[in-house]
Amino acid sequence: MVMSGMPPANLPPALGPLLDFLNLAGIAVFALSGALLAAEKKQTLVTFVFFAVVTGVGGGTVRDLLIGAPVFWVHENATLLICFAAALAAWLLPRRLWHEKSLLWFDAAGLAAFSAFGAAKGLAFGLAPLPAFGMGVVTGVVGGIIRDLLAGEDSILLRSELYVTAAALSAALLVGLVLAGVPGGVAGLVAALAGFALRGLAIWRGWSLPGYGR
Amino acid sequence: MVMSGMPPANLPPALGPLLDFLNLAGIAVFALSGALLAAEKKQTLVTFVFFAVVTGVGGGTVRDLLIGAPVFWVHENATLLICFAAALAAWLLPRRLWHEKSLLWFDAAGLAAFSAFGAAKGLAFGLAPLPAFGMGVVTGVVGGIIRDLLAGEDSILLRSELYVTAAALSAALLVGLVLAGVPGGVAGLVAALAGFALRGLAIWRGWSLPGYGR
Amino acid sequence: MVMSGMPPANLPPALGPLLDFLNLAGIAVFALSGALLAAEKKQTLVTFVFFAVVTGVGGGTVRDLLIGAPVFWVHENATLLICFAAALAAWLLPRRLWHEKSLLWFDAAGLAAFSAFGAAKGLAFGLAPLPAFGMGVVTGVVGGIIRDLLAGEDSILLRSELYVTAAALSAALLVGLVLAGVPGGVAGLVAALAGFALRGLAIWRGWSLPGYGR
Repeated sequence: MVMSGMPPANLPPALGPLLDFLNLAGIAVFALSGALLAAEKKQTLVTFVFFAVVTGVGGGTVRDLLIGAPVFWVHENATLLICFAAALAAWLLPRRLWHEKSLLWFDAAGLAAFSAFGAAKGLAFGLAPLPAFGMGVVTGVVGGIIRDLLAGEDSILLRSELYVTAAALSAALLVGLVLAGVPGGVAGLVAALAGFALRGLAIWRGWSLPGYGR
Repeated sequence: MVMSGMPPANLPPALGPLLDFLNLAGIAVFALSGALLAAEKKQTLVTFVFFAVVTGVGGGTVRDLLIGAPVFWVHENATLLICFAAALAAWLLPRRLWHEKSLLWFDAAGLAAFSAFGAAKGLAFGLAPLPAFGMGVVTGVVGGIIRDLLAGEDSILLRSELYVTAAALSAALLVGLVLAGVPGGVAGLVAALAGFALRGLAIWRGWSLPGYGR
Repeated sequence: MVMSGMPPANLPPALGPLLDFLNLAGIAVFALSGALLAAEKKQTLVTFVFFAVVTGVGGGTVRDLLIGAPVFWVHENATLLICFAAALAAWLLPRRLWHEKSLLWFDAAGLAAFSAFGAAKGLAFGLAPLPAFGMGVVTGVVGGIIRDLLAGEDSILLRSELYVTAAALSAALLVGLVLAGVPGGVAGLVAALAGFALRGLAIWRGWSLPGYGR
């Protein structure tokens, strides 16, 4: 087991403003997607908040635990406040504001932003390329997986639409571009847009991968 | 990201005898609730033990991982022995000893005790107030959520009864009282009793919050 | 709370070649079992990979988090490559190669290997005997539990066949033998074979434990 590149004193390295923005955007839209699922299930405001928090911070939390970083939201109030605000917005704003497919699109934006950010954070903590790529996928998909598990929904994992694939595209692009010398902010933007575009086409056109034996 | 108040050398600060008691009480009653669910599902003794352990230590384990504390039960035999004893009690004692609603009431006691203790431990590790409050809720509800997930039960999260709300009451009271200067033991007792009372009323009188759109 | 035996500087102690082999064998066969479940569910190649990784590294990841070890697969590419190869093998090789019960038997081998290895790693990190035993069970069963949860399958936990019991046999034997002075490699081999034999008999002969109240 090669233990190269331990993070320097466990302090999260600066990732640049664009990547930080991707993280905040991911938290907000995933929190909204969690709260909107609570709305679909006619839940209470407290459950709205719980689902917003779990979905908003779930993927990044698992990533931080895996890479040995301090969990990103426990030493400040701001992240949880974003999730609380998303839950309140879903609860208070008139329902017609939320297009029927809002949940899917918010989820798509969160997926792409988180996958790019997560892979960048993995690289910043000295991970090998393949695990850094894996951190992107984990950050992107785990919040939604926990949301679906807790809500008793079929996991989005099992649908043949391009979902994990879009996360993998964002994460792979980020790792590849950064290793090729592209600055982190540019790589993050390209990677997030590419993943969002692929997931968007999957939602819009029903694009999917072939299933086993078909 | 403000990194104020890192725990001193990762050693769990002393929380006082009353808070330690809340933790042990929470472990024992949640372990019993896990074992009683295994009994409802006609499981084997080994599964009784597995459910007792997962339910008894699940919430506190996730809390410790989130705050960067050493997981509380891995360097001693005592905690697991409590869970094993709870599983054996549920297996051996005559079934009529367990009132039909025993599981609900044991769960309520564990919920309140853990929510107060978890918030106190969060504060002791230097968390910001909102995440410390969140640690109380996590400690209180996550053991039961994992228990229900593994057993294939509908998550208690999705019932409109006051459940997460009771955990939130205990956690918020503890954080508020401690920040207001009340000694930890007193704050812990008040917070746990208030959460148990609220959850008890929800069980006894069927109190619930209004669901979305109703 | 006694905090004896903290791991020396968080570096994983050497466990010897035989125990390392048990770990690699466990990863490979659990990854295969995850990919074969994806095949049963007619999933896409991306989902094959996701299930292979989650099942292959899930148990060991939770163990490492619990004992405070660096997660074993994030600083190298090799572990994920093994899981990717297992997914590709399940996808490409002709279906008749996989006996109807392949999934069960690969799962059994992974269960036994991981339970012995996990308990040994727990001891190597200075855990008390009972939690070290628990780490064996966690390492053995958690990957399969997550696999079943994500796939929406009934958890293997709830079947009365000897499953967790076989993991417990391997883990208990390893802890007992090592504490009795038997070298780690020998203890690992005996413990893994015993657990595999017990689980194999449960599959072959339908051995099970009595359920509650029967």
